[in-house]
Amino acid sequence: MTAEVRERPLDKRRGGSKVRERRHPSVVPPGLEGGWYKPLRDEDVKRIHEASLEVLERTGIEVMPSECREIFRQAGARIDEEQDRVFIPRSMVEDALATARNEVVLCGRDPRHDIRLGGWRVHMGTGGAAVKVIDLNTGRIRKSRLADVARIGKLVDALDNIHFYLRACVAQDIPEEWLDVNTYYAALTNTTKHVTGNCFTAKSAQDVIEMASMIVGGVERLRERPIVSFVSSWSVSPLRYAPETVEVLTELVRQEMPVFLSSAPQAGATSPAALAGTLVQINAEELSGITYTQLVKPGAPVVLGYVPAVSDLRTGNFVGGAPEFALMQAAVAQLGRFYNLPVYNSAGITDSKIPDVQAGYEKGISNMAAVLAGANYIHHAAGILESTLTVAYEQFVIDDDINGSVMRMVRGIEVNEKTLSVDLIDRVCQGGEGHFLGEQQTLEMMTTEYYYPHIGDRQTREKWRADGGLNMAARARRKAKQILKTHQPQPIPPEIDAAIRERFRILMPLELANLE
Amino acid sequence: MTAEVRERPLDKRRGGSKVRERRHPSVVPPGLEGGWYKPLRDEDVKRIHEASLEVLERTGIEVMPSECREIFRQAGARIDEEQDRVFIPRSMVEDALATARNEVVLCGRDPRHDIRLGGWRVHMGTGGAAVKVIDLNTGRIRKSRLADVARIGKLVDALDNIHFYLRACVAQDIPEEWLDVNTYYAALTNTTKHVTGNCFTAKSAQDVIEMASMIVGGVERLRERPIVSFVSSWSVSPLRYAPETVEVLTELVRQEMPVFLSSAPQAGATSPAALAGTLVQINAEELSGITYTQLVKPGAPVVLGYVPAVSDLRTGNFVGGAPEFALMQAAVAQLGRFYNLPVYNSAGITDSKIPDVQAGYEKGISNMAAVLAGANYIHHAAGILESTLTVAYEQFVIDDDINGSVMRMVRGIEVNEKTLSVDLIDRVCQGGEGHFLGEQQTLEMMTTEYYYPHIGDRQTREKWRADGGLNMAARARRKAKQILKTHQPQPIPPEIDAAIRERFRILMPLELANLE
Repeated sequence: MTAEVRERPLDKRRGGSKVRERRHPSVVPPGLEGGWYKPLRDEDVKRIHEASLEVLERTGIEVMPSECREIFRQAGARIDEEQDRVFIPRSMVEDALATARNEVVLCGRDPRHDIRLGGWRVHMGTGGAAVKVIDLNTGRIRKSRLADVARIGKLVDALDNIHFYLRACVAQDIPEEWLDVNTYYAALTNTTKHVTGNCFTAKSAQDVIEMASMIVGGVERLRERPIVSFVSSWSVSPLRYAPETVEVLTELVRQEMPVFLSSAPQAGATSPAALAGTLVQINAEELSGITYTQLVKPGAPVVLGYVPAVSDLRTGNFVGGAPEFALMQAAVAQLGRFYNLPVYNSAGITDSKIPDVQAGYEKGISNMAAVLAGANYIHHAAGILESTLTVAYEQFVIDDDINGSVMRMVRGIEVNEKTLSVDLIDRVCQGGEGHFLGEQQTLEMMTTEYYYPHIGDRQTREKWRADGGLNMAARARRKAKQILKTHQPQPIPPEIDAAIRERFRILMPLELANLE
Repeated sequence: MTAEVRERPLDKRRGGSKVRERRHPSVVPPGLEGGWYKPLRDEDVKRIHEASLEVLERTGIEVMPSECREIFRQAGARIDEEQDRVFIPRSMVEDALATARNEVVLCGRDPRHDIRLGGWRVHMGTGGAAVKVIDLNTGRIRKSRLADVARIGKLVDALDNIHFYLRACVAQDIPEEWLDVNTYYAALTNTTKHVTGNCFTAKSAQDVIEMASMIVGGVERLRERPIVSFVSSWSVSPLRYAPETVEVLTELVRQEMPVFLSSAPQAGATSPAALAGTLVQINAEELSGITYTQLVKPGAPVVLGYVPAVSDLRTGNFVGGAPEFALMQAAVAQLGRFYNLPVYNSAGITDSKIPDVQAGYEKGISNMAAVLAGANYIHHAAGILESTLTVAYEQFVIDDDINGSVMRMVRGIEVNEKTLSVDLIDRVCQGGEGHFLGEQQTLEMMTTEYYYPHIGDRQTREKWRADGGLNMAARARRKAKQILKTHQPQPIPPEIDAAIRERFRILMPLELANLE
């Protein structure tokens, strides 16, 4: 960690990380580098940092009597027993920032989908804990089920611009006792991309770690190639620790599993209405989490999990489609770069109930903010509607095109002797064809310079109408059905799958793919 | 002009220009300052500048024998008579940049709508020359008419986040001879915001200037308070002047009217497929235009009119919804700042045929790019569909909310002692309520920190459904009808209107407002 604002080296501004670019001949590979957009002045980043340290020293965190509190005490934090508050000194935070990992690697079952969080490298994926689904066949709203977790995994597997799979909806049709393991199982068996979830108990965390270990060949191998990671909502804003969740967090950190420290204060409700104040508070919460986890295990792979949120102050409703939400998602990417630590944040939420024009612009705006700012792990960025309460199959397909477009923005404009095209312009204009249609550069750049949407329409009105005159949501429904019908994700080897089914109570039928 | 990259002074980063902010108590006043997003490195801006100068010296511009060519010749430009090319030396460009205006003022009939182009001050408005309209009553596509120009003016007048009115569609139901005057008349009588249009002949330009002079009280007064401005597509890419259009431009410049030098090369067709190459070419075209107009009249109020465009190289179709289009719109805002000259560019175009989710995200993305980059006069940013071929009444209403959201992004995050909220956080957490709901700061910031959409939905699904479960386009249609029925723009004084009608062949019925 360095407390300096790192300026991005010039030669790093172009293209994705080399490893990824070699593997993805795509126009928009995962891991392209952001950092183009900075909503905070550098000096404002420092002021927020300083204010957060002041909050931790002066206001502290509410921590009930627990192992966690003892860990803080032993490290030298002052405890107010009566108020149940832990006051964290600046030096303790600084020590933690020094041992925290500057990069966290997340792996896919298929190594082509490995992700290296850190720097300005941008990855976009799903997220949320939606409880409702727009049924793909009936178009009706219904409760989300385990089969949805599986089928959405299949969509994620098939769609190039969704880079990881954080379970997006809750399986409400299975007993809570088996929820965590089955959610991870449904995700892992349907995509070879990295899978993130959460665990409600230390026991289920151990189960998920064991299951993932069986897939990769042991827990040591899993630490090297973590195909699973965990979101921990250990903090309840403002500045309170959730006792049971902290226990799970502690277990995950001891197991050296990648963890996202998710905090989501709502400006005007659980954090100040002033956006800057919400940033101060969430940053204090995050720094306390980094400090705690580094006390538990120095070098543990934890990720700053900033989700500074907004409510509509007229109604109190959480509004993830608000521009102020998008602004803050970009701001926290800057905070992460300030600490040189990887950042998890949110984009792609809409407050619309359906995939309409509102869903489109709210997603376009917040995605642009988060990716241009260079956040590393942007979740909610596929499938989400209704302020995260609902997912829709077609929305994953739509969002794949949105993500492709904004990733093209992240790639930026390559400026070099060749692209400046001075000789080409001269040749075309002085005695040449007077246009660039057949030029070699045009033919070459056709497949390297431009992102082509797969569902976004670019036809003439006449052709569009002849094709049925469908809106994008209808076209996406058609494509989602086709993917679910035809796409076969690389399966887990049958003997491993059998062993998992023997060891755990797996509720997913083997023939899920045939359910459609 | 300065060839230095001007860094935005820190104390100027917040809020709109003072004049505007005093007049607009809005959360998102026009003229908020961008410059947050820079898709080009500073050194790449300089390379593009240098390459453009090389193009002007070496490749030159095609200019047929004309007064324009003689003006270039007299100033010392080398002419190739055989090839009809004018080669513009670097020094001539530099002289022009030194006399060009760093700010161009555009006025509304109502001074509250005055706009001061320059700096990073962002203004968003309509634009385009659509030939089709989605009829508000039938929902069917039909040819655009003069009444559409008038009614859209009314919408612009009523919608706060559309800051100026550049006629968005072509009146195809009137004789060409009277087109220009009637288009301006229909616009000017229906909004008190600034009106931009174009003129096909020097004669009609004189007529429009005369009509506008009658409204403001003389041509000298019009030069002080230009309630009209003009788009001139004087250049045909690559690097050719359009003889008749240049004649009109020359007349407008002599009359000291504000002119936008619009150039719109299409990468891969009329400019290089490499985005950087298209930027070099358009910058050469724009610099030639600045040079020519400053030769005609030093200090003439001309605006860099960069619209670097993209075609889908698989079909040749112009695609304004492409991310590459958005990228370049942001890049040209940087070029304008490099020269310290005002910039006109484009955002809000979609390739969708209807106001669907695709329209939403394409508009969200390109608007974000253009506003965060700090372009001064962003046209096409309301009402446009189908790659500029169609306008829809409801889309103006929708885009007003999109513009409000992105203007909120431009405003950024105010960081100061008060907004950092350290004391407030301490008070709430240590012995306070434990939440921020009833805090004074929350109540105050409710109306100052947050943009509330007027058509964007933020209700629960249940309430939304009870309200009819309409998508945003349907809600916007309802609002557009209501505005057209109830909104009464400030009329031109009857005696002036009568004088205009006596002097020109005005085809707009007096009772247009009653046509709805």
